[in-house]
Amino acid sequence: MIKGRVIGRVWSTKRLEALPQGALLEVEVESGSRLIAFDPLGCGEGEEVLVTQGSVAAGWFEGVRAPVDALIVGSIDESG
Amino acid sequence: MIKGRVIGRVWSTKRLEALPQGALLEVEVESGSRLIAFDPLGCGEGEEVLVTQGSVAAGWFEGVRAPVDALIVGSIDESG
Amino acid sequence: MIKGRVIGRVWSTKRLEALPQGALLEVEVESGSRLIAFDPLGCGEGEEVLVTQGSVAAGWFEGVRAPVDALIVGSIDESG
Amino acid sequence: MIKGRVIGRVWSTKRLEALPQGALLEVEVESGSRLIAFDPLGCGEGEEVLVTQGSVAAGWFEGVRAPVDALIVGSIDESG
Amino acid sequence: MIKGRVIGRVWSTKRLEALPQGALLEVEVESGSRLIAFDPLGCGEGEEVLVTQGSVAAGWFEGVRAPVDALIVGSIDESG
Repeated sequence: MIKGRVIGRVWSTKRLEALPQGALLEVEVESGSRLIAFDPLGCGEGEEVLVTQGSVAAGWFEGVRAPVDALIVGSIDESG
Repeated sequence: MIKGRVIGRVWSTKRLEALPQGALLEVEVESGSRLIAFDPLGCGEGEEVLVTQGSVAAGWFEGVRAPVDALIVGSIDESG
Repeated sequence: MIKGRVIGRVWSTKRLEALPQGALLEVEVESGSRLIAFDPLGCGEGEEVLVTQGSVAAGWFEGVRAPVDALIVGSIDESG
Repeated sequence: MIKGRVIGRVWSTKRLEALPQGALLEVEVESGSRLIAFDPLGCGEGEEVLVTQGSVAAGWFEGVRAPVDALIVGSIDESG
Repeated sequence: MIKGRVIGRVWSTKRLEALPQGALLEVEVESGSRLIAFDPLGCGEGEEVLVTQGSVAAGWFEGVRAPVDALIVGSIDESG
């Protein structure tokens, strides 16, 4: 997984039907590069998250073949 | 997924039969690197799009084993 | 696989249920980039490890579809 | 897919039996990095090609589990 | 596939049981980055090799789910 910070959200009206409804968050990783990840957890801007990539991300969706290659799997606890 | 902008289209007459008919668009991502993605949505030059990569892209095609590793899954709404 | 050194651990309370319980270690690879890998071996900070990535990592988990794309598969023996 | 130019061919006598017979071409992509792709199309040096990567490339081979992670899927038409 | 040169071997005593017995070679690719690949061919230091990555590498192992994401599939013939 990679660690990144949520920096925004993207909206797409013209999209494949197979793309599941739900939040698509823009995440910036430590190297400075950015990706768009599906968020089932309701994360907000500024939150530090764990992202899984590739076919593993799509495999999380049950009963559908979701064309999703990046999935937020956890929010990282703030260190105290 | 990654966010990119359509900058052109490529044509390939000499190709594998397994490669589905349809538009192959050249997309430039934020880092400046480029890739060629299959476009089922009819996107045009300059449009900002979401691209899914890897076996997840091929999995979207039904009933065929398409040798496609990049798929446009959505067009990003312009911010108002 | 890639070789890296364990530099810490991340904790995530708000997470997908499908994410297996167990240590999520932060690993720094030779290039300087970092990733978070699931650790079934009980590795500690400073330990040099081998990490497998992608769907192969998820395939190691039996009977579940774990959204894990990085797995520590071995600890590298110190050279004498 | 990525776009690249064929810059040579590699030969391997000592190889896995599972590796299919056929041309293994060296392809240079726009970023300057290079990869070796299986070529079912008979492409020649200097030709601009489309390369699919990952398990999608292996999936093109029928009835065998080919350890091939890069496949030339088309030759790009020269612009007139 | 990528082309690289064998620069060493790593040993791992503390490892997952699922990781197959056999040589784990360190390979340096042209860009200067390094990876660890499973070697079924008995390659030696200095040898130039072809490496397949990702789930395709794991798929080469029969009857087991090997957590291996890089496999040496051939040794490159020296040019005469």
